[in-house]
Amino acid sequence: MPAVTKNRLEAFSDGVFAIAITLLVIDLRAPAHVPPGRLAHDLWWNLWPNYLAYAISFLVIGVMWLNHHRMIDPVQWVDTPLLLLNLHLLLWTALLPFPTSVVAEHLRDGGSNAKVAMALYGFVVLGAAVAFVCLFGWLTRDERILGSLPPKPEVRRARQRFGLGVLVYSVALALSFVSPLLALLMHAAMALYYAFDQSAVAARPGDEG
Amino acid sequence: MPAVTKNRLEAFSDGVFAIAITLLVIDLRAPAHVPPGRLAHDLWWNLWPNYLAYAISFLVIGVMWLNHHRMIDPVQWVDTPLLLLNLHLLLWTALLPFPTSVVAEHLRDGGSNAKVAMALYGFVVLGAAVAFVCLFGWLTRDERILGSLPPKPEVRRARQRFGLGVLVYSVALALSFVSPLLALLMHAAMALYYAFDQSAVAARPGDEG
Amino acid sequence: MPAVTKNRLEAFSDGVFAIAITLLVIDLRAPAHVPPGRLAHDLWWNLWPNYLAYAISFLVIGVMWLNHHRMIDPVQWVDTPLLLLNLHLLLWTALLPFPTSVVAEHLRDGGSNAKVAMALYGFVVLGAAVAFVCLFGWLTRDERILGSLPPKPEVRRARQRFGLGVLVYSVALALSFVSPLLALLMHAAMALYYAFDQSAVAARPGDEG
Amino acid sequence: MPAVTKNRLEAFSDGVFAIAITLLVIDLRAPAHVPPGRLAHDLWWNLWPNYLAYAISFLVIGVMWLNHHRMIDPVQWVDTPLLLLNLHLLLWTALLPFPTSVVAEHLRDGGSNAKVAMALYGFVVLGAAVAFVCLFGWLTRDERILGSLPPKPEVRRARQRFGLGVLVYSVALALSFVSPLLALLMHAAMALYYAFDQSAVAARPGDEG
Repeated sequence: MPAVTKNRLEAFSDGVFAIAITLLVIDLRAPAHVPPGRLAHDLWWNLWPNYLAYAISFLVIGVMWLNHHRMIDPVQWVDTPLLLLNLHLLLWTALLPFPTSVVAEHLRDGGSNAKVAMALYGFVVLGAAVAFVCLFGWLTRDERILGSLPPKPEVRRARQRFGLGVLVYSVALALSFVSPLLALLMHAAMALYYAFDQSAVAARPGDEG
Repeated sequence: MPAVTKNRLEAFSDGVFAIAITLLVIDLRAPAHVPPGRLAHDLWWNLWPNYLAYAISFLVIGVMWLNHHRMIDPVQWVDTPLLLLNLHLLLWTALLPFPTSVVAEHLRDGGSNAKVAMALYGFVVLGAAVAFVCLFGWLTRDERILGSLPPKPEVRRARQRFGLGVLVYSVALALSFVSPLLALLMHAAMALYYAFDQSAVAARPGDEG
Repeated sequence: MPAVTKNRLEAFSDGVFAIAITLLVIDLRAPAHVPPGRLAHDLWWNLWPNYLAYAISFLVIGVMWLNHHRMIDPVQWVDTPLLLLNLHLLLWTALLPFPTSVVAEHLRDGGSNAKVAMALYGFVVLGAAVAFVCLFGWLTRDERILGSLPPKPEVRRARQRFGLGVLVYSVALALSFVSPLLALLMHAAMALYYAFDQSAVAARPGDEG
Repeated sequence: MPAVTKNRLEAFSDGVFAIAITLLVIDLRAPAHVPPGRLAHDLWWNLWPNYLAYAISFLVIGVMWLNHHRMIDPVQWVDTPLLLLNLHLLLWTALLPFPTSVVAEHLRDGGSNAKVAMALYGFVVLGAAVAFVCLFGWLTRDERILGSLPPKPEVRRARQRFGLGVLVYSVALALSFVSPLLALLMHAAMALYYAFDQSAVAARPGDEG
């Protein structure tokens, strides 16, 4: 049973990640009632924040999918708290198209609305980061889930890195009130960092056992 | 053939659950035409019922997925009535984003519209609960589907618990007309209960056979 | 390679069916700007054609998925025409939420618009039926796809039944211009018939080989 | 680990392709407020560019899925750059419903807006073509990803064909400014060509190894 359960957990999670990432396009709407000769202008000047937000959220959700994969891969046994903590992570991930759309709508005005929009974005990503911490905490609480725990210092280091991640996302949230555009780019940079930083998750060398 | 059929039944059902849960976010729309400095106010005061409804429906659909998994896992043979009863369950599940959106729109007014909105929500969840009962009834009608039935008293107890579930969801529906908010929270509590109550479904210990 | 290709063909097709069936809910929108005490009225009198169309299209797409499964199950070798004919079938299936929405919008007026709406619905279902015929024709053209063909009289009978199906869906289309509601119910009846009529597709007894 | 990773990479990519192709229908909206007897007219004259754009984008995304499958099938080892290059390809694919909707909205006016709309469409498809080139370049950079590279002349030929593809899509983009309708049909022709032209991707004969 556990292997099947893990397969369906992965299939369900993959589905949610894939849908959330693809729904980002829904916020890109064809301009209507455009006077002749104005479409190029409208497509660029009205929508560039949408393109930027689309690309960065695509990267953010894609890298979340990647790290979810890395974290779930060594799981040997699926229990109910694990399923609920996984659902909690998916809740924040599936929510991301909403702040993406808020940012795309308000980034250009540059004023306080842009700051609030970007803070909402940062808050949702921070929620996902905290959900990753909770999930990792449960996986490494004892040996039931992973079969055998990685060495203690390694687990401690991984938890410290996760704690650091939460701190850095909090900084990104605070940065929203200074420069929304910079905060958005910081999210892109963080996603790229987490794509390559394999040590941040409990990757287990070797086969699946 | 049955094993493949079950795999595709699970894949299709997982897909519907994953899409229904992710479509919940579509109802969260970025506020437009917001005066400078008002976005924080609008994001919170206009949308808090949406956040609450999103989180609770996410939990409800997630736990339905979990219990669907538990119920289908021991299936050995898939026939047409099983496929149609499964489709019937998916019909109610995939519908849930609609009452979620009605509740989010009308919860705040507190009057009779909020009560009707919440009753609609309760009705759709009740529909899903009845669909679970029908599906379970078919699975345990004789030995064809599960290979071997659990002991009779166990099946009887499971059916009683399901009947109780339908009763409790009917109470939640009735509660909508007293306090919509309380009824909504009752749905969250029920979902958490069903996440942990593994005895409510025909879980079979051991491997898949 | 063929087995993997078939797996991904099934996974991709399952995905499209699951998404098309779940997108049906998008057409159900929460009534807005409802005067106090009017929500129950609006939810029922404005939306009953939507509920009916939702339930029937859910059944129609669900049974299409089921028959797609039955038809693809015995496939041993996937070639490019098969992939394109499968894509052609998915094109009509994924389109169904559109005529569903047109029918829901215009069914109640009962006049010529209701007839045209229902005829559009019938046309799209007919398109899917023709796509099934083309796909089945390719599968049974020679032995390359299925490994070994069923006996010739059986293939001939199956093709006759498919031809009959196209005829009956044409009658349903014509019926739209007499009684749209009856035509819609006829689609539900046909879907139920095809759910149980396993001989309509090239089901192969025994294991997968 | 690599096999599992590849499975989830395929599952996630299949999901994104399936959702993007099914979301195309969202742009087809039921005409509202139609005077009696006008629905047939409105369904045809207002929406034929939508039907054309739907069918061609369905074909384009479907063939992208097919070639993605062919390209990923021989992969033996998944690393982070591969995952990011795959994400980059999905970013352009998942975006396609947007230019499809812009083309559907503006194709009929025939003037400069139609040209700009079609150029946007060509630009997004070109982006996907370049993403395929990058992905193929990484797969064939050395032997790590595919286990063993195809013979050098074969890789060189494949890269030349890919370069040619980028050139032809650039021509399609330029053609948008001469005849938008012709450019759209050229995309359909290209998709059909790539569906049958198996040599354009690193197909490996034999089993999966």
